Amino acid sequence: MDIRPWRLQAKRVVYQDRWVEVALADVQLPTGRAYTYTTLRRVPGAAVVALNGRQEVLVQREYRYPLDAVVYQLPGGLVDAGESPLETARRELREETGYEAEEWELLGTVQDNPGLIDGATTLFLAQRLRPASTAQLEQAEFVTSEWRPLSWLRERILAGEIEDRVLLAAFAFLAARGLIPER
Amino acid sequence: MDIRPWRLQAKRVVYQDRWVEVALADVQLPTGRAYTYTTLRRVPGAAVVALNGRQEVLVQREYRYPLDAVVYQLPGGLVDAGESPLETARRELREETGYEAEEWELLGTVQDNPGLIDGATTLFLAQRLRPASTAQLEQAEFVTSEWRPLSWLRERILAGEIEDRVLLAAFAFLAARGLIPER
Repeated sequence: MDIRPWRLQAKRVVYQDRWVEVALADVQLPTGRAYTYTTLRRVPGAAVVALNGRQEVLVQREYRYPLDAVVYQLPGGLVDAGESPLETARRELREETGYEAEEWELLGTVQDNPGLIDGATTLFLAQRLRPASTAQLEQAEFVTSEWRPLSWLRERILAGEIEDRVLLAAFAFLAARGLIPER
Repeated sequence: MDIRPWRLQAKRVVYQDRWVEVALADVQLPTGRAYTYTTLRRVPGAAVVALNGRQEVLVQREYRYPLDAVVYQLPGGLVDAGESPLETARRELREETGYEAEEWELLGTVQDNPGLIDGATTLFLAQRLRPASTAQLEQAEFVTSEWRPLSWLRERILAGEIEDRVLLAAFAFLAARGLIPER
């Protein structure tokens, strides 16, 4: 079957602000047919799996307006201009939780929705943590942080209480590495 | 810390089509301050972890325009009007792969990005599969399907080749249930 890239004929930006760009792309499909595709882009992000010596992970709860719900998630945020994702991860961990880490390891990348959005989040494992300062949150951030065993995270996933793609991806990356304890 | 819901003052839709709605919400933060929040909504989706008797999963590769790349993903699609997510999962498995399943089980839900989008995908585990028809793809779908062992999926995750949030969430849901074999 033909899965060649489509040919872009024209792209019109229909909405743009500092967070997101929405565009309509007129493409030619491999069959030759014309098709208009809605495509979004957002600023890339970075997130942190902070793991302490007791195999506990730093989990946040935050009110998220798009879902009108308080959700479990990881420390993290958007990559600022000139920053690498690792620099973002270090900065967000410090700002949101007050922790610094001596050991950083790349876990992987998760995309919000490859069929709709170019929206990547790069995940890092942070270990050998120490409290360095008090958290300094931005004006629209209302976040709590709590240390939870990895087995607690598994039970919350089984109970259907974890829906954030970044936190589920973090569990997948840790499980693939054999870091989740047996039930 | 206060994580009470924000108070909505006004919401303006700035872009809308059949796939996505983009709105600006003027909210009052718990501090009392005014803030404008970009919020998106898309049609909900459903996806299928089709698992055969050899513990192999049906993985797709599809060209995804927003990333300009061929990505690994699962069978699935958007929920049609009047459909339940389970009905969508059954339909998409049949349309995209030609398979039907006798056993269906809810795995969980993953959200594209709780900080930006109301965009849920409900995942189901489908077992006792049989080929029922040939795949019937929509005009913009160019998809290949392949049976792969769960250990293959883990290795692809470790190699950084899996970025779709649905496929990573599927691995997390299976790992939480103890269904991923040891390395």
